[in-house]
Amino acid sequence: MSKSDIQPWPKDVLGLRGMNKSTMTRILDTAVQFRTVSKRAVKKVPTLRGRTVIMAFFENSTRTKLSFEVAAKRLSADVISFSASTSSSKKGETLLDTAKNLSAMSPDAMVLRHSQTGAPHLLAKHFDWSVINAGDGINEHPSQGLLDILTMRDHLGDLTGKHIGIVGDIQHSRVARSNIFGLQTMGARVSIAGPGTMCPKHYESLGVQVVHSIDDLLDSVDAIMMLRVQRERLGIAMLPSVEEYASLYGLNVERLRKCQSHCLVMHPGPINHGVEMMPDVLDDPRSVVMEQVANGIAIRMAILHLALSGQKGG
Amino acid sequence: MSKSDIQPWPKDVLGLRGMNKSTMTRILDTAVQFRTVSKRAVKKVPTLRGRTVIMAFFENSTRTKLSFEVAAKRLSADVISFSASTSSSKKGETLLDTAKNLSAMSPDAMVLRHSQTGAPHLLAKHFDWSVINAGDGINEHPSQGLLDILTMRDHLGDLTGKHIGIVGDIQHSRVARSNIFGLQTMGARVSIAGPGTMCPKHYESLGVQVVHSIDDLLDSVDAIMMLRVQRERLGIAMLPSVEEYASLYGLNVERLRKCQSHCLVMHPGPINHGVEMMPDVLDDPRSVVMEQVANGIAIRMAILHLALSGQKGG
Amino acid sequence: MSKSDIQPWPKDVLGLRGMNKSTMTRILDTAVQFRTVSKRAVKKVPTLRGRTVIMAFFENSTRTKLSFEVAAKRLSADVISFSASTSSSKKGETLLDTAKNLSAMSPDAMVLRHSQTGAPHLLAKHFDWSVINAGDGINEHPSQGLLDILTMRDHLGDLTGKHIGIVGDIQHSRVARSNIFGLQTMGARVSIAGPGTMCPKHYESLGVQVVHSIDDLLDSVDAIMMLRVQRERLGIAMLPSVEEYASLYGLNVERLRKCQSHCLVMHPGPINHGVEMMPDVLDDPRSVVMEQVANGIAIRMAILHLALSGQKGG
Repeated sequence: MSKSDIQPWPKDVLGLRGMNKSTMTRILDTAVQFRTVSKRAVKKVPTLRGRTVIMAFFENSTRTKLSFEVAAKRLSADVISFSASTSSSKKGETLLDTAKNLSAMSPDAMVLRHSQTGAPHLLAKHFDWSVINAGDGINEHPSQGLLDILTMRDHLGDLTGKHIGIVGDIQHSRVARSNIFGLQTMGARVSIAGPGTMCPKHYESLGVQVVHSIDDLLDSVDAIMMLRVQRERLGIAMLPSVEEYASLYGLNVERLRKCQSHCLVMHPGPINHGVEMMPDVLDDPRSVVMEQVANGIAIRMAILHLALSGQKGG
Repeated sequence: MSKSDIQPWPKDVLGLRGMNKSTMTRILDTAVQFRTVSKRAVKKVPTLRGRTVIMAFFENSTRTKLSFEVAAKRLSADVISFSASTSSSKKGETLLDTAKNLSAMSPDAMVLRHSQTGAPHLLAKHFDWSVINAGDGINEHPSQGLLDILTMRDHLGDLTGKHIGIVGDIQHSRVARSNIFGLQTMGARVSIAGPGTMCPKHYESLGVQVVHSIDDLLDSVDAIMMLRVQRERLGIAMLPSVEEYASLYGLNVERLRKCQSHCLVMHPGPINHGVEMMPDVLDDPRSVVMEQVANGIAIRMAILHLALSGQKGG
Repeated sequence: MSKSDIQPWPKDVLGLRGMNKSTMTRILDTAVQFRTVSKRAVKKVPTLRGRTVIMAFFENSTRTKLSFEVAAKRLSADVISFSASTSSSKKGETLLDTAKNLSAMSPDAMVLRHSQTGAPHLLAKHFDWSVINAGDGINEHPSQGLLDILTMRDHLGDLTGKHIGIVGDIQHSRVARSNIFGLQTMGARVSIAGPGTMCPKHYESLGVQVVHSIDDLLDSVDAIMMLRVQRERLGIAMLPSVEEYASLYGLNVERLRKCQSHCLVMHPGPINHGVEMMPDVLDDPRSVVMEQVANGIAIRMAILHLALSGQKGG
């Protein structure tokens, strides 16, 4: 009997930093079970019938929001969208004020995206409903990290000793951070590459290897994850232009040829075609980008199910 | 057997002006029953399964809309949002044209917020589905009035002879108007205070006492309701500046000290902290602001349930 | 046993061009059955329980979107709205990229409106879920065509030999095109009228008669369909002003007097009152504009039901 079977399940999913391997494994295993639901004609289980899940997105995010919404509805929850842009949060109301008001409506969970690092942690401490971090500042995006890890586990099996490369703007990427924490807990070795300004040396304190060329990674990695680069950030100050970026850090067919035959090609989307990834790379059989999206539904179903089942010791 | 048990329940909730005490009491009592639903794990009753409730908000209102949406979903209704801002109402279509089109889709109820006083009354007359006024012009906001009255009844019991103070921009407040009508029907005595330009003497014709200083109310009221002041309105023409308003009409700890130990502190939200209410006032045990929000769900469940049950004599 | 009972039902509804009479008749007959659902207190059947329908509207359309949403919910489907305006499609992602991502979420159907002619056909070819065209470029709007044909069949019976007039900006109207294709397949004769620039002679290649005056149609048509004219288009270059348009092509009481007593007055909405149609025309008992809206729900229920039942040979 594992530890997670005895202890009550934590009500929140705030990040992969500090989440132990057995907790993570249980989320992955639960996701595998839920994955079959989306393959049936009737894509619905009654798990969260009568539960209220508030989607509170204070930053735009079509994909993550859609994915959580589909996940919650396939669990039969009632989904309520709190649209921050039309709300009184624009009128200077604090996040905590807004959350107190929403709390009075007796939600069971809030899926929160917020530009401030630590916003979900603040709410998790104040309220007894579940807080699911859907991206906070430049900190974490745990459901993305977990869906990436599930996709890797599907193909690579046990991740112990596996070598994963992450390339791009590590410094501004909550996807990178959640993967760094989660992958290491699962036993993998992580290397990161990117322009010095986007991939600083001090990341080594997180236990990863920092290399400054994507080419140093190609022949040894079991999976290579390309990050989305904000085009707006390129070509200014000490950053390369789009063309330079593509040639120095972009994944193209030549580079892919140097990768192992089982090396997974991953991207959290949406892709800047021609910047961090050339279009034809997606057609390579090693690309698992669409599997990542599909696993997103299953991981989010698992996260919501486990978090809510933990609320009342249930 | 009360009158409301014999007569068919009215299909619409347009305002508290003219609503009799037994009708109001039945809504409050029904809300008390529905309140337990939101405290369960499965927060859902099948009451309105297969009914279509259209949310037609022609003015922005995150909170009231969310509250009605949660209420309708907990009653198992199908909720359809009609977003006025992206609709053909912008192309000069009249409200009645829009409503005729929506009517052809066979809704069971429309929850309507509109900048024009009387808009819900117009639709109620033309259509056989239920019209629920969620705020019309500067006229009424009956569900807010009822949730305020429920919150007062919870704490003060029978409202006969109770003294309620409402402070702020009475003139532009549909919340104030619905409370004035409803509270008097329930037997309470209402006093209002605010700058002369926002709280004109002629309100006495509605049966309330008009005082011009919040300080005249403090020691005698059983509940004090602070209204939201539009900051845009302050500091122009004959109106005080923000600082003046806060010092002359704002509720602060010193003023609260002069109130009775059972005096409820209320606000319909969202609060302008530091204008009509100082932040520390909310921490006073007499503040019931969050109970108001919670009662909002229950009152709206009761309103929808009773209105729709009245449609076909059912 | 009709052909459609034996062959698997097509998974997509892309247009009425090329749709055969037995297919169209089955959609109409199914709609008639679903029409009763919207008249019940419980307006819901479990047909599509657990199915995911994505509403992907890349152009604004309150009415068509609402109608499809109500239809899908009355079939018990889970409805997910993909809002194109806030999505990464703004960031230069192609429609096919977006659709691949949505496809990974295992939808059962997508209701698509897109400014590009052929957009739904592209998706239908790439994916195994159902694509329902809710308007593509200036090509087709098949659910509108079918609801118009159902409304005509209700009143006129078998459409063989019936004469239908369509008046206005034929050239930019996907409503007109779907009606032209569908009506002819059902055996009707179609005539079109409008300013030469909006109703070009070459439409005769589609089998319709092109006349340049509404007055040539009045005494012989069994139904007259007025199209919405974009006010922005009038008064420039070779087009008439609003006043000229109304006097030359608008339907008014005088013109209506020349129509047969059974001649139906139709409009897909929203109406430009005073331009293509005078307000008092709507009050004529021959106007079936609101029946069109009601039939829209039934037709869309039928389309979704049949398309999804065809997916797995079911």
